[in-house]
Amino acid sequence: MTTRKDLRGLDELRPVTITPRWQEAGEGSCLVEFGKTRVLCTASFTEGVPRWKQGSGEGWVTAEYAMLPRATDSRNQRESVKGKIGGRTHEISRLIGRSLRAVVDMSKLGENAIVLDCDVLQADGGTRTASITGAYVALALAVEWAMKNKILKESPIIDTVSAISVGIVDGTPMLDLPYEEDVRADTDMNVVVTGSGTFVEVQGTAEGGAFNRDELNELLDLALKGCADLTELQKAALS
Amino acid sequence: MTTRKDLRGLDELRPVTITPRWQEAGEGSCLVEFGKTRVLCTASFTEGVPRWKQGSGEGWVTAEYAMLPRATDSRNQRESVKGKIGGRTHEISRLIGRSLRAVVDMSKLGENAIVLDCDVLQADGGTRTASITGAYVALALAVEWAMKNKILKESPIIDTVSAISVGIVDGTPMLDLPYEEDVRADTDMNVVVTGSGTFVEVQGTAEGGAFNRDELNELLDLALKGCADLTELQKAALS
Amino acid sequence: MTTRKDLRGLDELRPVTITPRWQEAGEGSCLVEFGKTRVLCTASFTEGVPRWKQGSGEGWVTAEYAMLPRATDSRNQRESVKGKIGGRTHEISRLIGRSLRAVVDMSKLGENAIVLDCDVLQADGGTRTASITGAYVALALAVEWAMKNKILKESPIIDTVSAISVGIVDGTPMLDLPYEEDVRADTDMNVVVTGSGTFVEVQGTAEGGAFNRDELNELLDLALKGCADLTELQKAALS
Amino acid sequence: MTTRKDLRGLDELRPVTITPRWQEAGEGSCLVEFGKTRVLCTASFTEGVPRWKQGSGEGWVTAEYAMLPRATDSRNQRESVKGKIGGRTHEISRLIGRSLRAVVDMSKLGENAIVLDCDVLQADGGTRTASITGAYVALALAVEWAMKNKILKESPIIDTVSAISVGIVDGTPMLDLPYEEDVRADTDMNVVVTGSGTFVEVQGTAEGGAFNRDELNELLDLALKGCADLTELQKAALS
Amino acid sequence: MTTRKDLRGLDELRPVTITPRWQEAGEGSCLVEFGKTRVLCTASFTEGVPRWKQGSGEGWVTAEYAMLPRATDSRNQRESVKGKIGGRTHEISRLIGRSLRAVVDMSKLGENAIVLDCDVLQADGGTRTASITGAYVALALAVEWAMKNKILKESPIIDTVSAISVGIVDGTPMLDLPYEEDVRADTDMNVVVTGSGTFVEVQGTAEGGAFNRDELNELLDLALKGCADLTELQKAALS
Amino acid sequence: MTTRKDLRGLDELRPVTITPRWQEAGEGSCLVEFGKTRVLCTASFTEGVPRWKQGSGEGWVTAEYAMLPRATDSRNQRESVKGKIGGRTHEISRLIGRSLRAVVDMSKLGENAIVLDCDVLQADGGTRTASITGAYVALALAVEWAMKNKILKESPIIDTVSAISVGIVDGTPMLDLPYEEDVRADTDMNVVVTGSGTFVEVQGTAEGGAFNRDELNELLDLALKGCADLTELQKAALS
Repeated sequence: MTTRKDLRGLDELRPVTITPRWQEAGEGSCLVEFGKTRVLCTASFTEGVPRWKQGSGEGWVTAEYAMLPRATDSRNQRESVKGKIGGRTHEISRLIGRSLRAVVDMSKLGENAIVLDCDVLQADGGTRTASITGAYVALALAVEWAMKNKILKESPIIDTVSAISVGIVDGTPMLDLPYEEDVRADTDMNVVVTGSGTFVEVQGTAEGGAFNRDELNELLDLALKGCADLTELQKAALS
Repeated sequence: MTTRKDLRGLDELRPVTITPRWQEAGEGSCLVEFGKTRVLCTASFTEGVPRWKQGSGEGWVTAEYAMLPRATDSRNQRESVKGKIGGRTHEISRLIGRSLRAVVDMSKLGENAIVLDCDVLQADGGTRTASITGAYVALALAVEWAMKNKILKESPIIDTVSAISVGIVDGTPMLDLPYEEDVRADTDMNVVVTGSGTFVEVQGTAEGGAFNRDELNELLDLALKGCADLTELQKAALS
Repeated sequence: MTTRKDLRGLDELRPVTITPRWQEAGEGSCLVEFGKTRVLCTASFTEGVPRWKQGSGEGWVTAEYAMLPRATDSRNQRESVKGKIGGRTHEISRLIGRSLRAVVDMSKLGENAIVLDCDVLQADGGTRTASITGAYVALALAVEWAMKNKILKESPIIDTVSAISVGIVDGTPMLDLPYEEDVRADTDMNVVVTGSGTFVEVQGTAEGGAFNRDELNELLDLALKGCADLTELQKAALS
Repeated sequence: MTTRKDLRGLDELRPVTITPRWQEAGEGSCLVEFGKTRVLCTASFTEGVPRWKQGSGEGWVTAEYAMLPRATDSRNQRESVKGKIGGRTHEISRLIGRSLRAVVDMSKLGENAIVLDCDVLQADGGTRTASITGAYVALALAVEWAMKNKILKESPIIDTVSAISVGIVDGTPMLDLPYEEDVRADTDMNVVVTGSGTFVEVQGTAEGGAFNRDELNELLDLALKGCADLTELQKAALS
Repeated sequence: MTTRKDLRGLDELRPVTITPRWQEAGEGSCLVEFGKTRVLCTASFTEGVPRWKQGSGEGWVTAEYAMLPRATDSRNQRESVKGKIGGRTHEISRLIGRSLRAVVDMSKLGENAIVLDCDVLQADGGTRTASITGAYVALALAVEWAMKNKILKESPIIDTVSAISVGIVDGTPMLDLPYEEDVRADTDMNVVVTGSGTFVEVQGTAEGGAFNRDELNELLDLALKGCADLTELQKAALS
Repeated sequence: MTTRKDLRGLDELRPVTITPRWQEAGEGSCLVEFGKTRVLCTASFTEGVPRWKQGSGEGWVTAEYAMLPRATDSRNQRESVKGKIGGRTHEISRLIGRSLRAVVDMSKLGENAIVLDCDVLQADGGTRTASITGAYVALALAVEWAMKNKILKESPIIDTVSAISVGIVDGTPMLDLPYEEDVRADTDMNVVVTGSGTFVEVQGTAEGGAFNRDELNELLDLALKGCADLTELQKAALS
């Protein structure tokens, strides 16, 4: 039987903490922690939308992901110093944005924009899934703020959304991989799931050998279980 | 019953053409066409590997995807003129690279590098899947060249790989979406499959509403069927 | 007597092929080949002009030249990856733009813009002259399209234009140099000529020793002969 | 008499908190708070020095300052997205680096480098002075780590260092300005002081009218008092 | 007793030359020389202000500092070639702009902008202080031009401004350091002073050991003396 | 008969001044003036060559051209601020480099590099031809320096080189165009000529209508006359 270093069950999340309103700046914010992974999520609500949305009567939600240089074990050069954003950063920013847009009714948002900044303060695997999970909380708080301030009449949020990583490590499918398991995984999958249990994104990648249909199904089962747990934690943080 | 504009069956590919050795430059090349989508794939084989692989005894395979400015209906600014590569370009380049590495045994490649350039000359949906499918053919030709020139003793290729898009349009799952169907799709999925029928990548995205487990399964069935057809076309092009 | 590797006469062009409408995208396009040099020329016609031309009643014609990374014998890094456009690319883009503007009556074009994209798919010397020659064909097709679509009442094109390289190799002046001759040339000249036989650009450079007035005259004779031949091929392609 | 909004005395610091080892990543780190200003300071200790120091037997200490996009009241574009670092960021990074180097004996550091990352999570005036004050603590912890791990035999730190802002607001000199006072200040000064009470940097700027010698002296008195208080807080945090 | 290489007294300036209207381009210009340091200062007066000042009724003054690649003993790469401006350049440009704004009444300037370009042709220490001193002269000439051309009714200049470096070399405070003294200085200070003898900027930096209050006072005395001398030279150049 | 504003003959140069050793920095330098056009040319001689020349036993000569922001009638943004070098700058830098390399025997230069910086202080037409003419003088002085310092045994300079602009203005060919004539020219040509009267570069461009063979010949006659005059002035400056 496979035993995980931290003695967790295969379908168990790491200790997850969501601290809402950790920042005073931002219309909504939270500090989200999946084990040692720690992400500061801040929502900026602004009236007005990008040019290509003007006159549409609809709003826009977007996200920017970044990592502090010493979030990881060894220091990485800042992307501002390099003068360009890497492919991985772009990819994750786009994923977070799409995931949140899937649960927002843009016409109810009106011509307003919400930017979610997800800054990884410390990274130990699962930074993109923690970001999505925390960004949802920051988004919900920003919407709450906008309603309290009479900018929005009704909430444009139509469902909750969270995300988790799953993977096959040493032949065994397991939930919520820290860095140490992530690098050893043959298959790595990030799954974004709504509160109702439907899929927003499924991104599975064979890092070692290709994976078959049965393995895919086992991984999806684990992810649905993990996201159901996260949904409860989001609700608790917002209540 | 849903009828497609081009009268194709729901599980049918567009006319696919693979013209091997379309270019004289490059150790391997092909022009791949999925309907009106037309991608020039060129493999550059060079002795030596990037610094972080030196001394490992292993090779490296990577890819760069790009689109000509007027590949699409209206002209896009060149990324060289903008001075930076967009998120979408980065994301697709990384996907192509990962997909090909999944079927190459890096230790058999020795300390050699293969770069796959996938330049979209004309775009009508499915440019990333056409790129992967064509890049495999260019890669195989470059390996053939290296064996003929005694740089490689045996082929490091352990399986074939191809890719196809599937999506749910107006509630109906269908295979290989051209641009016109792609923009209308609620769910859009790109699937990368080996010749043996196992998965290398599964990337499903809810563009409209989230999708459920049954829909996911129908899409995977279609994709496996499409990739099996592409595998045959790749074999024909290489024989 | 000097014999050329491909047994051509000193005043003879390489086999030249112009395939009009090679692309479906673009208001005009052609694939032009000078021997192994192969350039895809696409014209994008858009209503409106750059800000500094607005209100002038006049149009604008500009060009962008680029080379695929593996157009040449060894792979070059993409300019989009480098994050900047090199001096040579800039210089050739500007030359193509000026050459085409010389045969367009900007007031008859009205406040419309035409961008010519010249993408070198394969390079074997003479890429800038092939680009100008092909860009003219793409431009003419775009104008034809604009007249058919009642955007233009009359053609703003006042003459045809083509270009050819000439050079002194091993002391002998010769026409249309492939890469192998180009690198050995002492003097290298690119000449842009209208259908009426007048000069638009004359760019002669001493790569080895300086050249005298007689040599200059011999080179100009060759260039005028070559461009007269290209003019015929352009007409045939457009008829 | 001038009363400050938060009822502080003119020579009183805002509530200052220094939380050492707030991060697990980094050889030293602290979260430093001056009122609502909150900066995460992390020290990365690496063996080896930049090229221009190699073979000198000496080490190097440098710093990078940055602000999260929503540290402030309204969101700023990320410098990584802009593709370049602004003048203010450069200026502050250089100031922090110089300040810390003033208290390190580079020959005792040996050929080792310490990078101090100061990331402003929330900004309410005084971010550069909080950064220097916190960076010293992170530096001291990193040196402690290096001694515990036998990389350094003796501490290269020769004094402590802290910094504070002072300014003339409505004609009155005062200590440690929050944003609201800072924008109203006629003269603004940042002073970096060692634990022994000598100056490392004195940067005074007339934002409104120029200032005279007496005013300069009053500001320096306040700064020396404030830095003496900060020195005590640094000692407490490190003990 | 300390003897300076050029036998100057400790409180003596290097030979200073200000040649007004050295350039025909520019609404005001001068070539300023502090010993071998030689800076071309040019003022560009334009009607209109940056967007964030529009409608304020106020003007704007800003500066850009740069150095020719071979201003110094060995050649430096151009910042235009590097593709970015270094921290030092940014810092000095900002300092020059602030210094000049301190002596301009923005409401009397009306919605007009003045840009001061300070290009260092030859550098031998003190380039920033020579730039400020010369930029003031160029500014005054540009204001004179604007009044002669009836763009301004009255002068917005409320005082003169000049700047000088002071430092402690081998334990001795001295005025106006050339490069050779600057690199040996323990403490280095740049002081910007108005014609009335009040401070606009005081920037003191301990390069070696920290400095105490007495040393600071001695340096300020020297700087006030030096700037009084420069004020006379500015007046002479403008009369 | 055409009369020029400055009453010059059609084949007459503007007043040309060459001040050798205008700068102390640089192994060679001069300030060259063609009328109001004023360029500072500085040669930097360094031992060693770029990587691609190492081991060849040959040297390298290259050039960088730039313009101060207010060299012209209205201010241009700095290329360092834009973050990239424009096409025109690139083109002229390359032209200057090629022109000088044509008169240098690279094997006699040994593995040494000379960089020519041509910084336009004031621009009134003909900046590229003044740059080439002045750069030759700076180069010759740098070679003189290297011989005096025993770095070179014999001079690698095999001929002198100068350049001049010619053009057809209002139907009349004329020499050395200032800005005011340049913008009105139908045909504009820059010609680079050796001291022996042979061509290094001929760059003719039809700005208005195309030009014929007779016009080309008249322009070349003028250019040869003008460069012969410049050659005399270069000799005088160097003696």
